[in-house]
Amino acid sequence: MLAVGKELLIGRTMNSNAFWIGMRLALMGSMIKEIATVDDELDEIGSAFVASLARSPDFVVVVGGLGPTPDDMTLKGLAKATGLRLRRSPEALAMIKEHYASSGRGEVELTPARLKMATLPEGSVPLKNRIGTAPGVKLTFGGTRVYSLPGVPAEMKSIFRSSVEPEIRAAIGPVHRCYLRMRLEGVPESTLAPALSRELRRHPGAYIKSHPRGVKGGASVIELDVAVSGRDPGRVEREGEAIAEDMKEAVVEMGGAVGPVRGLRKEDR
Amino acid sequence: MLAVGKELLIGRTMNSNAFWIGMRLALMGSMIKEIATVDDELDEIGSAFVASLARSPDFVVVVGGLGPTPDDMTLKGLAKATGLRLRRSPEALAMIKEHYASSGRGEVELTPARLKMATLPEGSVPLKNRIGTAPGVKLTFGGTRVYSLPGVPAEMKSIFRSSVEPEIRAAIGPVHRCYLRMRLEGVPESTLAPALSRELRRHPGAYIKSHPRGVKGGASVIELDVAVSGRDPGRVEREGEAIAEDMKEAVVEMGGAVGPVRGLRKEDR
Repeated sequence: MLAVGKELLIGRTMNSNAFWIGMRLALMGSMIKEIATVDDELDEIGSAFVASLARSPDFVVVVGGLGPTPDDMTLKGLAKATGLRLRRSPEALAMIKEHYASSGRGEVELTPARLKMATLPEGSVPLKNRIGTAPGVKLTFGGTRVYSLPGVPAEMKSIFRSSVEPEIRAAIGPVHRCYLRMRLEGVPESTLAPALSRELRRHPGAYIKSHPRGVKGGASVIELDVAVSGRDPGRVEREGEAIAEDMKEAVVEMGGAVGPVRGLRKEDR
Repeated sequence: MLAVGKELLIGRTMNSNAFWIGMRLALMGSMIKEIATVDDELDEIGSAFVASLARSPDFVVVVGGLGPTPDDMTLKGLAKATGLRLRRSPEALAMIKEHYASSGRGEVELTPARLKMATLPEGSVPLKNRIGTAPGVKLTFGGTRVYSLPGVPAEMKSIFRSSVEPEIRAAIGPVHRCYLRMRLEGVPESTLAPALSRELRRHPGAYIKSHPRGVKGGASVIELDVAVSGRDPGRVEREGEAIAEDMKEAVVEMGGAVGPVRGLRKEDR
């Protein structure tokens, strides 16, 4: 994922888009591999695209920098990184005109700023934006599908749901995920560490991670997350529950207390 | 900045640490140039360090992956990227022992998990953690100072304030910043764009950015931010106010309305 926007670098805006996309992908059984957050500068955006495409990921999701203002340079950066020319897209222009017509602004003059939102790297496909003006943009380059989405969260989410998520789901196929969480008290993380290591060796594909939540009444509080993904729902559930059981036993043996195991955001498709 | 932790990639944790550090740096008159967010994997962390150090920044701030559990691999990644050996640091060990002693846990056995938090790339300086166990770590490599901080926000903030901020402030010297914000109504971003371009050409060093906030009663709402930094407080204030005045005039001329100009997080040192 690539997040573009100075507001993310200067403590003006929390990167809630990365959080939301990370969650959606995790629910699908996939995952963001890396997030690069860069400034609204052509060279920065271009370099980030080059670095990202060099890893040959299946998908790159880019958020921000699609609007009409001069700092919106994501598509220029993508063109630069891929060597593709920027071209006026008739489909994108039609979407923009339709947006203006339906928002009751009547005939809107197609100024350079507005035409810019319809100027895409050649070979791109515009993605309908039901909330705002700038269409999303899909470009396949090498084996990578690059989706560029606007930074306004409502617009990003709408396009992601309608145009990105179905394609990623189709590509990765059905994945079942078991995500469990429990609260541990009275065992500091450094005491827990060997049990965690042992369990991770037993279940190499699983995600088992402790999140320290401070000290309450002299006792360390930890949230422990366990996640397992796979094709077979029964096996995934059994493995998740077995790990939770092992960790519970280990913590009780160390003199700690374990709260109820909660299932989180399970999704079966 | 480098943020390490799978929780940031799967929508479990919002990257509030990047937000907070970005804000602190902006207040100092500096800025994060890029944020890389990576998984708890040695190769990922190592590559991110290599890429980051290759840009020869003045500072790299790394957050996360300093704890005692097996997924905490930041210092191993830093050692890998720099070619430095990991060594037991007596100062770090003393800090860890002191933390255990003062937290009333008495004599704590120095297990491998605990010793790990005192095992730093050679040449590192441990930074006192007044809240938790794992010390921060400072390493100067080439012309870059790398600060590794724990991911728990309270610990990160405490070490940043006491050990990182004073050094960055000293390096960049006194910078004054004027940060203004105003609310525009009735002018869509695409209409505003040419005025923004003109103003950015007039003030090449300034930050002038529109943040669309949707539509209210048929009228576009935009938050416009203006920021100017520099050594001379008087000049910085005058330039910020001149930009705000220009933009107000332009918006009113386009038939829009402008709310009061608010000064934000100004800081003079």
